[in-house]
Amino acid sequence: MRALVTGATGFVGRHLLAALAEAGHERFACGGPHDADAMPLDLADPSALRGALDLAQPDVVFHLAAQTFVPEALANPGATYGTNVTGTANLAQALRDYARAENATPRLIFASSAEVYGHQPPQAFPLVETTSLSPNNPYAASKAAAEMLLLGEARTFALDVVIVRSFNLIGPGQSDRFVVPNFAKQLAQIASGGKPVMHVGNLEAKRDFLDVRDAARAYVALAERGVRGEAYNLCSGSVHAIKDVLRELILAAHVPVEVREDPERMRPSDTPLFLGDNTKLRAATGWEPRIALRSSIREIYAAASSQLGAS
Amino acid sequence: MRALVTGATGFVGRHLLAALAEAGHERFACGGPHDADAMPLDLADPSALRGALDLAQPDVVFHLAAQTFVPEALANPGATYGTNVTGTANLAQALRDYARAENATPRLIFASSAEVYGHQPPQAFPLVETTSLSPNNPYAASKAAAEMLLLGEARTFALDVVIVRSFNLIGPGQSDRFVVPNFAKQLAQIASGGKPVMHVGNLEAKRDFLDVRDAARAYVALAERGVRGEAYNLCSGSVHAIKDVLRELILAAHVPVEVREDPERMRPSDTPLFLGDNTKLRAATGWEPRIALRSSIREIYAAASSQLGAS
Repeated sequence: MRALVTGATGFVGRHLLAALAEAGHERFACGGPHDADAMPLDLADPSALRGALDLAQPDVVFHLAAQTFVPEALANPGATYGTNVTGTANLAQALRDYARAENATPRLIFASSAEVYGHQPPQAFPLVETTSLSPNNPYAASKAAAEMLLLGEARTFALDVVIVRSFNLIGPGQSDRFVVPNFAKQLAQIASGGKPVMHVGNLEAKRDFLDVRDAARAYVALAERGVRGEAYNLCSGSVHAIKDVLRELILAAHVPVEVREDPERMRPSDTPLFLGDNTKLRAATGWEPRIALRSSIREIYAAASSQLGAS
Repeated sequence: MRALVTGATGFVGRHLLAALAEAGHERFACGGPHDADAMPLDLADPSALRGALDLAQPDVVFHLAAQTFVPEALANPGATYGTNVTGTANLAQALRDYARAENATPRLIFASSAEVYGHQPPQAFPLVETTSLSPNNPYAASKAAAEMLLLGEARTFALDVVIVRSFNLIGPGQSDRFVVPNFAKQLAQIASGGKPVMHVGNLEAKRDFLDVRDAARAYVALAERGVRGEAYNLCSGSVHAIKDVLRELILAAHVPVEVREDPERMRPSDTPLFLGDNTKLRAATGWEPRIALRSSIREIYAAASSQLGAS
């Protein structure tokens, strides 16, 4: 199939390009205005979106481009709504116009987030896809709002959309603004002679971690076998405390450290447990995660360590 | 209390202004760019929204301004998203800025719609507020998306929002693009000598009708006693087929008519039954509907008849 990927230079995007290549699919990579490795694409410009579709003639569009960092959404919610909600609505409109003009209906794979579930009672875990959305922050709200618009488009204009709700994806290449690569970077700095003190947020929080390469294979599988108009949890289905991830990283770094809790790293309305049920994804696609958490963590540390050496 | 009303010259807005006056509240009415009876307010202009808040210094903002007509949303979804989603996000931002500057947190009463429930299985009726949102058209999707953004704002920035999900509001003053006043206008034309043929859509559909004046009192009650961050169904809790409404209108008009079904008046993805549960609203506010359906219908016919005489 021919795949157009927005946000192709991001964390998930680069791994998705690799997974598409491995599966023998043609790829058309779009990125932000300053990306050298991909065609710049402005989500605020409907005619540019339409132009990209005309150029790529895709069978499937993976829409990964978004403002994904919760603290940035808290600092500037309007910009996050613009990129994540209006940008997605603009893409839906471009797909509608393209479908009419070309008599072709590319599938849209929308990168949503498990953040849309937000605040849930303990008995709601593991979360299934029919759980009521209850977003807790402006990033979560932007993804939930975009899902609503896409559902309306699917039911009114026959948009062939599949929604992917990613839980905590980890792996090489993630920005060190996120917790696991941030810890890895701090440890790599300590291992190379830095002050042996780590600054951490809430270590007790339990999360459902999945390697980004397993996630990328699931994206491809959903493009091929997901059901139109449906949402799928993308997760491991098992849960680990952040402190267990930290312990694995410290073992990988093999250095003594002092761990300091930093209130500024605690997110408002942080939730103690977040766990998904991936039954629906497995049943639809036959997908299964392959990479063990320990193996992901070792690679993340190795990447942080070699990046520090390189800089 | 001091109330700022957006969309004050609309169907619900005018009745809300009356209900606020009757309850002794101060009113600050905002309307569209061409409204003579209200201060023009552009939802696309964040600084205008902030200016209106500075001027009105409200205790409560009733946000009724929206593109509310489903066929218009189908014809031009992007414009509906802009007004209903981005416009609401802009108002939330203005409230956030105002709250910070003035150390005051006006309550926001958001006029959502039961359309957000969209397609539901038969056993879901009567609909309660915890039902998963499943919007079926771009108008429904725009209201569901705006609800998501407001929930995020409520939980992150302490926005004091109350969401009102109106079912089928009827009463004097509704645009004859909507079904009941449209039937009334056709009948008034027949009664004054027109061709005795009526064009109708799906008469079997069953809806939960509520008089707009009862709805306006509920809006005021929710401003006073609704719970922050909660959504409330606004409905009668009982159901009537469109053909029963038509029969009452024909009785009021007292003319013989031929009724013709018109496929163009059938909405895509129309649902056979739509019924809400108003227990939550009653429990929070003590509100009860007062105006019987038959009485609403007679008044709607009388209004259509006198409007025809006046034109």
